[in-house]
Amino acid sequence: MFTGLSAFPLTPLVNGEIDESRFTSLIENLADAGVDSIGALGSTGSYAYLTHEQRFSATKLAVSAAAGIPVITSIGAVRAGDVMRLAEDAQQAGVNGVLLAPVSYQRLSDAEVFLLYERVTAELSVPLCIYDNPATTGFDFSDDLLIALSHLNKVGSVKLGNFPADPDRAIQRVEHLKSKMARGVTLGISGDMQSAAGLLAGCDIWYSVLGGLFPHYAMKLSHAALRGDTTATRQLDLALEPLWAFFRRHGSLRVIASIAEIQGAVQSPCLPFPLQTLIGKEMASLEATLEQLSFLA
Amino acid sequence: MFTGLSAFPLTPLVNGEIDESRFTSLIENLADAGVDSIGALGSTGSYAYLTHEQRFSATKLAVSAAAGIPVITSIGAVRAGDVMRLAEDAQQAGVNGVLLAPVSYQRLSDAEVFLLYERVTAELSVPLCIYDNPATTGFDFSDDLLIALSHLNKVGSVKLGNFPADPDRAIQRVEHLKSKMARGVTLGISGDMQSAAGLLAGCDIWYSVLGGLFPHYAMKLSHAALRGDTTATRQLDLALEPLWAFFRRHGSLRVIASIAEIQGAVQSPCLPFPLQTLIGKEMASLEATLEQLSFLA
Repeated sequence: MFTGLSAFPLTPLVNGEIDESRFTSLIENLADAGVDSIGALGSTGSYAYLTHEQRFSATKLAVSAAAGIPVITSIGAVRAGDVMRLAEDAQQAGVNGVLLAPVSYQRLSDAEVFLLYERVTAELSVPLCIYDNPATTGFDFSDDLLIALSHLNKVGSVKLGNFPADPDRAIQRVEHLKSKMARGVTLGISGDMQSAAGLLAGCDIWYSVLGGLFPHYAMKLSHAALRGDTTATRQLDLALEPLWAFFRRHGSLRVIASIAEIQGAVQSPCLPFPLQTLIGKEMASLEATLEQLSFLA
Repeated sequence: MFTGLSAFPLTPLVNGEIDESRFTSLIENLADAGVDSIGALGSTGSYAYLTHEQRFSATKLAVSAAAGIPVITSIGAVRAGDVMRLAEDAQQAGVNGVLLAPVSYQRLSDAEVFLLYERVTAELSVPLCIYDNPATTGFDFSDDLLIALSHLNKVGSVKLGNFPADPDRAIQRVEHLKSKMARGVTLGISGDMQSAAGLLAGCDIWYSVLGGLFPHYAMKLSHAALRGDTTATRQLDLALEPLWAFFRRHGSLRVIASIAEIQGAVQSPCLPFPLQTLIGKEMASLEATLEQLSFLA
């Protein structure tokens, strides 16, 4: 399950409530494209802004609309008791795996992060992906900690956050992690701008924001990379550079939500308050950029 | 209300539930000492790790035990809807003011933070303190944003986070903010290690972790600084340097919680899982340091 392309769709909101029909359509679009897995209610799916009840009902919708394609969902929360309850809910909703970032208010120590994963994995029946996302959690996993965590029961994958920009250092890091992590635990890249580089350096899976809205293109890129076609991968990635420039300025969530609003795939505004999609000149510029990227659709 | 010493007590837990008798004792200790205000359920009070129900009941306990001393409480949460509900709860519990950090999962933009405070203050009956805490929120307030926010209705104070280490730049920053912020909005310093410097640079109030457990000493320091006694303030601060060294290494919450455990003011472990008080050599070293700081009690 933790290989290939994992597509992370938006969870569109209308006045704080989930727009169920559009959410279902986004999932069906991924199922029709045949992505390798669906990361419903990931960071792109605004999981941290939803109530337990919203997360439970959206996860059930996602599993149903995914039509057999594996669904992964995030169980992250500030309160450890909530994480445990969300893990139960997710499994009851029928997910194939869960995703957990060390969400916290106080920045956690390595020892505290280990304790958290140890407690959560002890109760799980489905595999867990360790979600390294320093931009949202303030916590940066060391390789030593990732290696230690990989040996916990039920850990199935690691979704890397910060990744070396230098290709040689990237390969070294992936080789080091793969040689020390528990067998069978896959290595994933996230942060769409660095994902082609991550896959070419040896990662097994792309946890993809782009793939949540444009699954065909993201699959083409990830599969080219995974079969070792460096030239095709780099071309497909380079063509997206105008989009990555927006991701760098505004964060991937605000940009992909803006695109979904432009396309009418979601109602506007679709993000949880106070998060905002682009406005004014930046929105106009994004619309113009999208016309140049018509190959995405 | 937003001047002098605001003392931030722990909210001690036992198996995830609030230890109400010890929490009440901590508040009574502050009321007996006659602090200027009590910051119940601040970051030191682990607000982000408590349910709405726990926050509501603890706030009521705090108001009762404070015996007329103003109580401020935090209404921060990731979901904006939760912030609005927590504001209502806090006011119903009888607080004199509220404290709001731009807690988020996605790092917010300046415009988003402004929208959040605008919405929250529009509904408030009590004054609000803007809580700048980059270490926990990932958001760093610019002076321009603080100035703009100070002009919102109901904003009464700013609790500064990052603060210039250079004394001249510190004075310049305080003078700049005070000259541009709305009249009557006070400037507060937090981060205990820099608080003497903040007060000497012209801040009006110390939002104090130390004061939550050792109110007499913290009052002595803050009042010396506020009457302009530089020499006494520096001496009182310098004497705490061994403690600040632990704060730098472990964060103030883990250290003050460890001290409260050592003293028996709370049961052990008192922090929300997975947060941990000190162990092993660091705990032994803290115990030895405390013996040298017997003047604190």
